[in-house]
Amino acid sequence: MEARNLTLLTDLYELTMMQGYFKNEEVNQPAVFDMFYRENPSHGGYAVMAGVEQVAEYIRNLHFESEQIDYLRSLGIFGEDFLDYLKSFRFTGSIWAVPEGSVVFPHEPILKVIAPIMQAQLIETAVLNIINHQCLIATKAARVCYAAGAEVMEFGARRAQGADASIYGARAAVIGGCTGTSNVIAGQMFDIPVKGTNAHSWIMSFPDELTAFRRYAELYPDACVFVADTYDTLKSGVPHAIRVFSEMRDKGIHPKMYGIRLDSGDLAYLSKQTKKMFDEAGFPDAVIIGSNDLDEYLIESLRAQGAKITNWAVGTSLITSKDWSAFGGVYKMAAIMTPDGVLEPKIKISENSEKNTNPGSKKILRIYEKDSGKILADLLCLADETFRESDDLILFDPLEPWKKTKLKGGIYNLREMLEPVFIDGKCCFKPVPVMEIRCICQRELSTLWDETKRFINPHQVYVDLSDTLFKLKKELLAKKGEENIRQ
Amino acid sequence: MEARNLTLLTDLYELTMMQGYFKNEEVNQPAVFDMFYRENPSHGGYAVMAGVEQVAEYIRNLHFESEQIDYLRSLGIFGEDFLDYLKSFRFTGSIWAVPEGSVVFPHEPILKVIAPIMQAQLIETAVLNIINHQCLIATKAARVCYAAGAEVMEFGARRAQGADASIYGARAAVIGGCTGTSNVIAGQMFDIPVKGTNAHSWIMSFPDELTAFRRYAELYPDACVFVADTYDTLKSGVPHAIRVFSEMRDKGIHPKMYGIRLDSGDLAYLSKQTKKMFDEAGFPDAVIIGSNDLDEYLIESLRAQGAKITNWAVGTSLITSKDWSAFGGVYKMAAIMTPDGVLEPKIKISENSEKNTNPGSKKILRIYEKDSGKILADLLCLADETFRESDDLILFDPLEPWKKTKLKGGIYNLREMLEPVFIDGKCCFKPVPVMEIRCICQRELSTLWDETKRFINPHQVYVDLSDTLFKLKKELLAKKGEENIRQ
Repeated sequence: MEARNLTLLTDLYELTMMQGYFKNEEVNQPAVFDMFYRENPSHGGYAVMAGVEQVAEYIRNLHFESEQIDYLRSLGIFGEDFLDYLKSFRFTGSIWAVPEGSVVFPHEPILKVIAPIMQAQLIETAVLNIINHQCLIATKAARVCYAAGAEVMEFGARRAQGADASIYGARAAVIGGCTGTSNVIAGQMFDIPVKGTNAHSWIMSFPDELTAFRRYAELYPDACVFVADTYDTLKSGVPHAIRVFSEMRDKGIHPKMYGIRLDSGDLAYLSKQTKKMFDEAGFPDAVIIGSNDLDEYLIESLRAQGAKITNWAVGTSLITSKDWSAFGGVYKMAAIMTPDGVLEPKIKISENSEKNTNPGSKKILRIYEKDSGKILADLLCLADETFRESDDLILFDPLEPWKKTKLKGGIYNLREMLEPVFIDGKCCFKPVPVMEIRCICQRELSTLWDETKRFINPHQVYVDLSDTLFKLKKELLAKKGEENIRQ
Repeated sequence: MEARNLTLLTDLYELTMMQGYFKNEEVNQPAVFDMFYRENPSHGGYAVMAGVEQVAEYIRNLHFESEQIDYLRSLGIFGEDFLDYLKSFRFTGSIWAVPEGSVVFPHEPILKVIAPIMQAQLIETAVLNIINHQCLIATKAARVCYAAGAEVMEFGARRAQGADASIYGARAAVIGGCTGTSNVIAGQMFDIPVKGTNAHSWIMSFPDELTAFRRYAELYPDACVFVADTYDTLKSGVPHAIRVFSEMRDKGIHPKMYGIRLDSGDLAYLSKQTKKMFDEAGFPDAVIIGSNDLDEYLIESLRAQGAKITNWAVGTSLITSKDWSAFGGVYKMAAIMTPDGVLEPKIKISENSEKNTNPGSKKILRIYEKDSGKILADLLCLADETFRESDDLILFDPLEPWKKTKLKGGIYNLREMLEPVFIDGKCCFKPVPVMEIRCICQRELSTLWDETKRFINPHQVYVDLSDTLFKLKKELLAKKGEENIRQ
């Protein structure tokens, strides 16, 4: 598929402000913008990064076509000089992002832009749209797969919020841990496995269930899974399936994958009964796929009750992240170059202290415990700060700075999380196949302590500030306080 | 923008079943499929139909390109004869839908397909995806606009679930009642008004707030709305705005629209204080735009407290339908032609009686009270049934059939709701401009009693079955019951 031109996927105010910077060139200085989020989806302990490849595509393809400029002209608020400038507009800034599949935490700059402010502003909407969507679904998938502890297939295309939500949602779901998707176009675009069984309508279009099963088995002897609840799961669906599997066995046909899908009723009870019937008939390796409004909470509960589901097919709740429909990522200015070339850190204050932004151009250092490979904490610091793994490291909670921890030098490893995507307008992003990003994500999830993956009240990973960054923030806050008193 | 080929936006099982019908041609008979939903979003009293134009586009553009066929071949499950057939595949069936902007209710066939079953099956996923998404957002928008009783702007692009969700979500939001969107690409594609103010970063990039306001006012004297909470709304933002408005007045500049946007803090308190300050300064017609995580419940509550917000900008909760992330529309077989050319009604039964489907090829008759123009009920009946407005009409609840109402002939009007979109593969859909659909929707919403628009425990509109349809359903249920006993 050809790349779509999403240049106008932007809020009108980005363009009106852009014209404002164009006309007030003295304030159109390079600025640093951070994308970060404030709360883990579904009150969880982490999120999964995804969508960077689509951001890179969007930026590479960012340009105004004459039809778009004509449209902007028709709005009657843009001058010809500005419209003229848009004709040759290209992004000339730099972007860094945490690699796809990584685990990330609140308040970290998971994506950082340094560009003349009018450029940084233009891309805000689309960058947020892409990353917010894919992080949301990748995170949900990781949660669902953690609950399942078995194969999870993404089956939500029909309930997704539009075509892109189904396509890029499937991509993100596989990054987060799903083994495949029912969505054929996503399979084609991202080279990810496509999966499926059959629908009730297939069964209903034959004179009886047994005939429908037999015809399906003739066609697909290698992946022979029947939806079993069209008439009655235990009285009709499972016995008919066993009969067809027996007939296949008698003919010497041994499918790679065979079994049934349960799509209604109580999946714990039905799967246990089905498993017993399959075992008694000599089909202990038959799959029992569970579907029907599943999410991580229901899957965890069904497993706790000993459900014998071998594969899970998850639709609506995964593809829309039903209990947490938006990732909530924001894009805030962190610094701006003064006319004399100094990068001046900026802070946006809020009535709620936790919502005060972190000023300056920053990086994320991830601190791993050397022995276990698990994450001890993330350290936000200024981009030019350096730390040595052999030195002792004092960590403290930025909201309660009297809470301190000392890490002895040599027991921890540091990793810089932000990687370049564009440098001075040049794309340096190397796409990674989605199934490889999935492997990266599996490794990343293994760096989390189990306590962080719990659904209820999980342990929150510490995101600490370096001493320098903490002091800078305090200083800027104090200055704001002074200004408020003077007013 | 060129139409995208979404032919492979389908679940794999649609294609495997399709090949199954291709190989079992005797069961590939014309079949009737209904799209319907079971519960109104957000526990409301209605939904708003949207997305039919995109369904028509999708069907018109439905064809398999060689690249797609190569991909399907690579899956190793499709035969060359079937792949060959796909090369010249076109949709030859018929589709009816309720017009966009109409109010609709649970269990009604809001879209009906009659086509050879393999065709009807192929389009299931995309049709559901499109209609589910747009109905969801149009319904949410109608609710938010009802709460606001004033202008509502769609501001959610950055939080939507992907590009399409922002673009078609904006379309649906305007159909449901929003007066415009911040999303420029949606404005261009659907010729809908684009709106916006400015961001905190604009203010922060100038040495001070007053300068930032002044520069903005110079550029946009006609639509001069400042975000007011960058530093301190009442101490800084509003006084600076008043100062700039006064300067404009002194120069004889009278903006068409001017005012501020409140994006944090308590909107009830801040808007009342702001209104007072504006009034005292002689700017009684200044707008006060409210934004920041709004939804219909918060807007209703703010208005109940006398908030002086004149325009509402709603983002995340609207564009993702936060409290109800999926419309939940399904697509079920209602009848199938037997080899001897008789349309045989089909029913899908469920353990939950309310989930039993309605059999047969049906239509929806909407019953309006002649005097008030309000909806009295919807009547589902078989497609070939006729009713005369001059006759008395007995209505009864399909789940509790002893509850009956008699409508005297002459006091009601009937309207058939389903309109043709495709007939025998030929498109007969006439696109309606989105702003016109918005007007249709406004009229449609006025046919609902206020009691149906309430958010908490609203009155549910009756969707009754005709006597003939009711008897058919009872008959098929009885037959199923007999079959179950015999097993």
